[in-house]
Amino acid sequence: MSDIAMIRAAAERLRGHARRTPLLSSPFLDEIAGRRVLVKPECLQHTGSFKYRGARSAISALDANVRDRGVIAFSSGNHAQGVTLAAREHGIPAVIIMPGDAPAMKIENTRALGAEVVLYDRANEDRDAIGARLASERGLTLIKPFDEPLVIAGQGTTGLEIAEDARALGIERADVLVCCGGGGLTSGIALALEADAPGLRARPCEPEGFDDVARSLISGQIERNTKLTGSICDAIVTPSPGEITFPILKRLCGPGFVVTEEECLHAMALAWARLKLVVEPGGAVALAAALWRKDQIEGDAVIALISGGNVDREMFLNALDRFGDQI
Amino acid sequence: MSDIAMIRAAAERLRGHARRTPLLSSPFLDEIAGRRVLVKPECLQHTGSFKYRGARSAISALDANVRDRGVIAFSSGNHAQGVTLAAREHGIPAVIIMPGDAPAMKIENTRALGAEVVLYDRANEDRDAIGARLASERGLTLIKPFDEPLVIAGQGTTGLEIAEDARALGIERADVLVCCGGGGLTSGIALALEADAPGLRARPCEPEGFDDVARSLISGQIERNTKLTGSICDAIVTPSPGEITFPILKRLCGPGFVVTEEECLHAMALAWARLKLVVEPGGAVALAAALWRKDQIEGDAVIALISGGNVDREMFLNALDRFGDQI
Repeated sequence: MSDIAMIRAAAERLRGHARRTPLLSSPFLDEIAGRRVLVKPECLQHTGSFKYRGARSAISALDANVRDRGVIAFSSGNHAQGVTLAAREHGIPAVIIMPGDAPAMKIENTRALGAEVVLYDRANEDRDAIGARLASERGLTLIKPFDEPLVIAGQGTTGLEIAEDARALGIERADVLVCCGGGGLTSGIALALEADAPGLRARPCEPEGFDDVARSLISGQIERNTKLTGSICDAIVTPSPGEITFPILKRLCGPGFVVTEEECLHAMALAWARLKLVVEPGGAVALAAALWRKDQIEGDAVIALISGGNVDREMFLNALDRFGDQI
Repeated sequence: MSDIAMIRAAAERLRGHARRTPLLSSPFLDEIAGRRVLVKPECLQHTGSFKYRGARSAISALDANVRDRGVIAFSSGNHAQGVTLAAREHGIPAVIIMPGDAPAMKIENTRALGAEVVLYDRANEDRDAIGARLASERGLTLIKPFDEPLVIAGQGTTGLEIAEDARALGIERADVLVCCGGGGLTSGIALALEADAPGLRARPCEPEGFDDVARSLISGQIERNTKLTGSICDAIVTPSPGEITFPILKRLCGPGFVVTEEECLHAMALAWARLKLVVEPGGAVALAAALWRKDQIEGDAVIALISGGNVDREMFLNALDRFGDQI
């Protein structure tokens, strides 16, 4: 259902809309990692995360008469902002269902971009049920955060860019570390790399305690997280990999990485100092793995994707306070 | 002496070395500015500032037997790092003369990249004299920070990229606001725009109290700053525009902008929140002018260059503490 043709079609629809992010690097990061580190900074994407790609891909592919009734999405904040901006660009309404404990900046930004925001309790309410009800009441189209081929295709455009830029840098074999929640981005990138850069291998990265994808890849079947709250990596905490994304991950990805929250905060401080990037905790897991899981990585170079930069000031100051002098 | 042919030749020498930075934007910045704001983030350039372009341009153009003896530069930190990295890439030694009050991170990074760093007193010593003596003693080639055609040509490659990307965005007439010290970057961009985007006009931006270029453009002759210390915008404080840069600025630039240090800190906080960029105070003057000098800007869009992101933690925290809740 998801394939490279869908990704290339999404890339056409996104042309002139999604931002073409570069690959960044720093000799200081290379030194820590013991190999060449290339960073794909999707925190520089519109709305501060890669989520805009999938949202615009899905919304732009809807029939106009369906699209005009509006869209609905559930999200801790990055998918929310991506869907809201893509909806605004199409001149249609967006309703966003967000957990009440999402970073304040994400909630505020989503509202400021024009969405109607509905808050729910992440621990006790089923966001899918809330979304389905509102969608049916108002005739809205649900834009799923990851388990949707058009969304996977949009996220996969990131992989096309990685393949192209890695080739230009002479990198033919390398692990591509991807911050992974439900697996939409990772599966999309894996499909793109399979087609355009078969020597590059996608590998999902997660925070300790929320490593459903890493465990699923080990067991060969979909595993679930035992909890869904309590992580600073809010952007990439989901119950489990998706029914659509997991078979792709299983077929194409290398083993997953698990990093600690401390390592995420340290990676945020290094991204601040060495890349001049603002990264959110969940967006830093892949960079953390690239820097501090060197024995689990193969090759002379590693590519790490930064998935987003929508971080509250308090959390960002925490990272700089703790690790700003260890750069 | 400096012309578009030199800039195009520098672009060829920099191809595959200098980073091609994108144009970024945020609807939140557009709203503040009252027009479309495009940001050219040279904080993402190698070594965290545009200075790498000019340094690599100059060093790569030297005769190999001259180059092999090494290079010397004086700089508050950004030119220092650019020259050091470009020298390292060519396998040659670099001696860098830096003011003792330069941000600690800049001094440390310059040393870590492999330079021999010589500190001097910005208020009481003549860095030109120190540089000339060391250069003659060791046979080093002096890489001037701005008043050198090969350096201007390298910085001007930024303007070629702005012209190309503005055209792709449909922007035909706009002011291009540039953080300006001695005028190497501004004059290079002005020359590039004259050739490739004659509807775009470069305009220098400076901090209050160090507005030698703005005053020089008004009087029509080179004016000097009355002081050279006491600014948080260390990166762009120079005594006066250069003998080579000023005639170019005078011929091609629109009037200069002067912003306050408070506005620079506020722009840094906005770049953190809205662009996910780490910007140093001197690198934020053009963004500050784009946001808060709207009556002095012409056109529906404005392009603001961020010149660098090499900021100490204390200064960065200061910006977020003061303005992180005014975003």
